[in-house]
Amino acid sequence: MVKALARFLPILDWGARYQRSTLISDLVAAVVVTIMLVPQSLAYATLAGLPPQMGLYASIAPLIVYAIFGTSRTMAIGPVAVVSLMTASAASRVATQGSPEYIAAALILALISGAMMLAMGLLRMGGLAKLLSNPVVNGFTIASSVIIAASQVGPLIGVKTSGQTLYAIAVSLTARLGDFNAWTASIGVASTAFLFWVRKGFKPVLMRLGLKSGTAAIVAKTGPVLAIVVSTLLVVGLGLSAKGVRTVGAIPIGLPPFTLPPHAGPVWLQMMLPALFISIIGFVSSISVAQALAARRRQRIDPNQELIGLGASNLAAALTGGFPITGGFARSVVNFDAGAETPAAGAFTAVGLAAAALVLTPLLYFLPVATLAATIVVAVLSLIDVPDMARVWRYSKRDFAAMAATIAVTVVAGVEAGLATGVGVSILFYLHRASKPHVAVVGQVPGTQQFRNADRHDVITAPEVVSLRIDESLTFANASWLEEMVPATLADRPEVRDVVLMCSAVNDIDASALESLGLLNAHLEAAGVTLHLSEVKGPVMDRLQRSSFTQALTGRVFASQYEAFRALAPAACDSRAMDLSENVFGEGI
Amino acid sequence: MVKALARFLPILDWGARYQRSTLISDLVAAVVVTIMLVPQSLAYATLAGLPPQMGLYASIAPLIVYAIFGTSRTMAIGPVAVVSLMTASAASRVATQGSPEYIAAALILALISGAMMLAMGLLRMGGLAKLLSNPVVNGFTIASSVIIAASQVGPLIGVKTSGQTLYAIAVSLTARLGDFNAWTASIGVASTAFLFWVRKGFKPVLMRLGLKSGTAAIVAKTGPVLAIVVSTLLVVGLGLSAKGVRTVGAIPIGLPPFTLPPHAGPVWLQMMLPALFISIIGFVSSISVAQALAARRRQRIDPNQELIGLGASNLAAALTGGFPITGGFARSVVNFDAGAETPAAGAFTAVGLAAAALVLTPLLYFLPVATLAATIVVAVLSLIDVPDMARVWRYSKRDFAAMAATIAVTVVAGVEAGLATGVGVSILFYLHRASKPHVAVVGQVPGTQQFRNADRHDVITAPEVVSLRIDESLTFANASWLEEMVPATLADRPEVRDVVLMCSAVNDIDASALESLGLLNAHLEAAGVTLHLSEVKGPVMDRLQRSSFTQALTGRVFASQYEAFRALAPAACDSRAMDLSENVFGEGI
Repeated sequence: MVKALARFLPILDWGARYQRSTLISDLVAAVVVTIMLVPQSLAYATLAGLPPQMGLYASIAPLIVYAIFGTSRTMAIGPVAVVSLMTASAASRVATQGSPEYIAAALILALISGAMMLAMGLLRMGGLAKLLSNPVVNGFTIASSVIIAASQVGPLIGVKTSGQTLYAIAVSLTARLGDFNAWTASIGVASTAFLFWVRKGFKPVLMRLGLKSGTAAIVAKTGPVLAIVVSTLLVVGLGLSAKGVRTVGAIPIGLPPFTLPPHAGPVWLQMMLPALFISIIGFVSSISVAQALAARRRQRIDPNQELIGLGASNLAAALTGGFPITGGFARSVVNFDAGAETPAAGAFTAVGLAAAALVLTPLLYFLPVATLAATIVVAVLSLIDVPDMARVWRYSKRDFAAMAATIAVTVVAGVEAGLATGVGVSILFYLHRASKPHVAVVGQVPGTQQFRNADRHDVITAPEVVSLRIDESLTFANASWLEEMVPATLADRPEVRDVVLMCSAVNDIDASALESLGLLNAHLEAAGVTLHLSEVKGPVMDRLQRSSFTQALTGRVFASQYEAFRALAPAACDSRAMDLSENVFGEGI
Repeated sequence: MVKALARFLPILDWGARYQRSTLISDLVAAVVVTIMLVPQSLAYATLAGLPPQMGLYASIAPLIVYAIFGTSRTMAIGPVAVVSLMTASAASRVATQGSPEYIAAALILALISGAMMLAMGLLRMGGLAKLLSNPVVNGFTIASSVIIAASQVGPLIGVKTSGQTLYAIAVSLTARLGDFNAWTASIGVASTAFLFWVRKGFKPVLMRLGLKSGTAAIVAKTGPVLAIVVSTLLVVGLGLSAKGVRTVGAIPIGLPPFTLPPHAGPVWLQMMLPALFISIIGFVSSISVAQALAARRRQRIDPNQELIGLGASNLAAALTGGFPITGGFARSVVNFDAGAETPAAGAFTAVGLAAAALVLTPLLYFLPVATLAATIVVAVLSLIDVPDMARVWRYSKRDFAAMAATIAVTVVAGVEAGLATGVGVSILFYLHRASKPHVAVVGQVPGTQQFRNADRHDVITAPEVVSLRIDESLTFANASWLEEMVPATLADRPEVRDVVLMCSAVNDIDASALESLGLLNAHLEAAGVTLHLSEVKGPVMDRLQRSSFTQALTGRVFASQYEAFRALAPAACDSRAMDLSENVFGEGI
């Protein structure tokens, strides 16, 4: 009973063995992640077109829920850049940014995608996430990052922009270029430069100041907070608000509100597909981070339980004024490096964020929006993995084509179209590959009952009998291939009287393939050729016998290919053959 | 040169050998098909929500073009019921029936789907039509036929209905039930009853009147024309027009006009997906008819050239005032049975239709719409293949589920949603199957270098070495399975030191699977297990070597599984083994 419960509530497992030393490690990690997550959560809420406090809200209840249901020991969930962009793209289709309808759409997105993940997890459909090949996911991440970076150029220099495609952003940027504000641009560019430097350059400086390597690495992660503190002080000290530098402004103080997305309406229908995409991208990117980190500590991740954890977290986000969230890459690595040992670190981070929501918000009044933009730009530019593109290009032109198509369509036509293209292209390539299975003309290995590829082995064949071994299940994807392939093989061999399809690798024959087999049988019959099957697997044979195919079949179904060859080509067959499953050397040797 | 041309212009092939006797056969068939096609083309244009003359126009130029480019000797193309319903469904989304915009949408649909088919044919993507499994196509046809039959109930009793789902049709029917017209209903019901009877009952009557079986069968096909003549005469004789019986009315006299779909606009974008669906359904249903008929005369159909032929025909339809067309089942069988030997029969049919457009149209003024509705009802009810549903149910529950989902969604939510569901479900099932490939723990067949499934054969294994034969290519569909499967196999075998993946059936490793192999390698390394590969095929190995995987691999890549086993488990390996490709009996025995 407890074991069954523990499967759905991993907290029962690790919670029972929780120790004092683990508590300290988790607390340290939580402090570091909190410092990192406060500016990120504000920035990503802005990126999603939502009020900044929704970023804080999205980082409280969901983290506690994930700590209960998630299987990753070290993943840090919350708002992430790509999902925030997808939220903005979907919500701005049904409402204008800043309106109550827009906020409602974000809550609905979190609710639907949470419910979808939960359902997929309970139905154990974690494997289906692989509808997206890695190159497609990486291409989508790259393209989204480019769009996000472009969308932050405006805020970085004091210009309000809109749009979720490169073109739309560029148009709105040039239209309002007159709003350029030198003070904003100075803060924006300086923050960006500092944040780029701090990622590599801060740690050596701290070490020269006497900090140990590990401590220095953790302190270096406070760089974004430093940028926020310094730029806020600059705004206050120099009175830059009056000089046109846009700041975050008033953020309501308090814990997350209880929110219920509005009643069902047409918006819910319109959010279905975007929510599905958010579920898939959220899950796929999260699970790959979780698995990579788990592998380093030899832990295991259960993809289905992970879907349940992320689904429950998104439901929690929808009910507490948040928006769609998932596991973040950089943040999880920091959590891991800072020593997090259990999901409790996530719960402690939630406490830190709650404290920030209660205490910190008044201090953020003068935080310049440009600094948040700089945070986003630096975060997403690290997601643009050019070496990976080169690797894929070298390794597989087909995968590269899927990746390139995803990038191009995402950048030009937006995230939903891009993702749909990626999925579509992957599946087309896959079916294309599956539509031409490997097939071998086989012959008898002399002195045995074995049959091997006649092109690669020195085997016995008979001119009037063609034996074809089909190395794949027969399904709708290759049914038409089957109808073509057999006659094509016989085209220049008028002497053939019998065709044997050796089905040792055929694990399934679906209704489409069955129909094609029937047509093939009729076609061969018309041409005076008899069709036989051999080595049909038990379950496949059971189903064939429930159809009328076995009656229509002109030839026989042989238990083994050897039996078929001996019956159809007795003169050619090497009948000294003995079964390989006996020791050919016998006992005496 | 001529040969290359002949590939794209099959007319050069059969045209060069055209004989007088063929001419006569083709002419006879053309007359029969013309008699059948005139009422059908009018009826299907009405079903598509278009003026009746567009049905005639769609049956002239496209037939001539198909005669030039098509590969089927006997297929009769023109408007068909299901595609007409799809046209109505798509066009009524952007315009109201009867408006110039509605007609423009139909032209655009023909143009886009023609261009799509042409492109798919030139890119040799005929095999991809198999995105649709047979049960999905059959389910879609059944559901469409139900919708079409329901949509004709209104016209049959004098009530105008609208809508493309069962619910919408039922609503509009009940709302206007007051328009019921007894005269119309009498004609409608009588025509329906007559047309049902004529299909089976007319031929025996004709034979009793002294006609030969073959001739009687052909004359029996004139049944619909008889219904049209009689009901038109009734309307004229009894003055039924004045009594509320709706008739076809004025049809412009003349040959098809030259039409150019309007300039690109948002409508074009909205027609893209419906046009794709029309292309696919049009092609799939046409090719299966063509192949079935070709098989009876031992001819071959080239699916890609068939796409070119249908594509060019649809372009012709778009340019001559028509709408999307494809090969019709019943009509092609009649053409075949009437003796058509070459595509010239189609061209002659076009001449017949042109004559009808020039001469016959005034006579159609008093043709009651109810008779056309009866023609449609009788035609589509024959497409509802209940025995096929039962066959699929018996044969494969999975295929039946796809079929049932397609039928349910089509009937409830319309043709596009239904077809999308069918494709989606098929692909999900397919990927689900592909995501769990067959894998076998293999061992050495004593005294040989062969390795077989340890569950099914008596083979030699070693406790510290696990050899897994993977019976499928490694792709994104099974990449996550691979990461799970190997550790799961090792879970209760702590003594394992080496894992060998035997790749004899792995024809491809895509970028996603490569990444999973890398993760698996790292995971096993962390657990103190070495990963090896064996029997990697040449092309796969070439690509692996272009990646960094072979450097990261903790173990080796063995040329053969035997070599791997001998190196990793020298104590267990039966090294008396000899190669199977030599005759194990030697020369002396």
